Amino acid sequence: MPASFLEECLSILTRTPAILDTQLRDLPEVWTSATEGPGTWSPYVVVGHLIHTERTDWMTRLMTILEYGPSRPFEPLDRQAQFQDSDGKSLSALLDEFTVLRRDNLVRLRALDLQPAQFELQGTHPALGVVTVRQLLATWTAHDLAHSVQVNRVMAKRYKEEVGPFAEFLSVMK
Amino acid sequence: MPASFLEECLSILTRTPAILDTQLRDLPEVWTSATEGPGTWSPYVVVGHLIHTERTDWMTRLMTILEYGPSRPFEPLDRQAQFQDSDGKSLSALLDEFTVLRRDNLVRLRALDLQPAQFELQGTHPALGVVTVRQLLATWTAHDLAHSVQVNRVMAKRYKEEVGPFAEFLSVMK
Repeated sequence: MPASFLEECLSILTRTPAILDTQLRDLPEVWTSATEGPGTWSPYVVVGHLIHTERTDWMTRLMTILEYGPSRPFEPLDRQAQFQDSDGKSLSALLDEFTVLRRDNLVRLRALDLQPAQFELQGTHPALGVVTVRQLLATWTAHDLAHSVQVNRVMAKRYKEEVGPFAEFLSVMK
Repeated sequence: MPASFLEECLSILTRTPAILDTQLRDLPEVWTSATEGPGTWSPYVVVGHLIHTERTDWMTRLMTILEYGPSRPFEPLDRQAQFQDSDGKSLSALLDEFTVLRRDNLVRLRALDLQPAQFELQGTHPALGVVTVRQLLATWTAHDLAHSVQVNRVMAKRYKEEVGPFAEFLSVMK
């Protein structure tokens, strides 16, 4: 039997902390602090951003929809919050923090026992307008995957010069 | 002290099997068999490709350089091999296979105890011409990361429609 939409999302969402932990904990800092240039994010910054969205975005917005419907717009997301919030914290501490926050959020999500009709409930995004619970949960899931794309891309591009002629076969370098 | 170039590469190469295992083992098949359209690769296909390169590419080419230098061109890589090789195998079996092959290859690589001058030794790529040991090792490393980009991108794009208006904020969907 195909997994339900919610189970599909959960199968990704539950794994992300362990994936990032396996990939980044105790990795040499040359990798975890690498960026794609000024103003772009390192893997360390990405983990801080995931923590911030775990605290302020997904479950908070879901509860806003369930409690207020479209009448109360979501709070805008601060995309720079992690630069202050992560200050002085080790990557290991951030990975621990993300793991706990994600686990707690998924416990809360499961406890809601959302029924099919509730996936179509609407909320108001401050920039995008009307969005549904289903779109919010799909975005939470895709957001994890998108930032995993970023983490791997940033690290791959660190070797853009190192790979020499092989860059021709590595589209990620372009 | 900064990690040496080889240790940098190894820090990535050693982790890849566990990352893919954490991400893909027992994940619903809707995710692991997803593609970006006809002719593109699913996560399942990517793992098969990584197995093939582990068997025929990296260490094989390194040994060709160390034994023959640029006089013997590398065998061309078969980019379609996994479609036959993976036939009938479960993703779990492929993940196990990749884990063992990678571990054995890294044991062999460490046992070579490459010295700085050896990183500049040259081989002949059948399409790209002269490449060095250092470029080959950097490419092995970047190739892991590039295929992790692909795995995450393919899965993210599965939700291109599901995320609705949020697609505007997810550049991976474009």
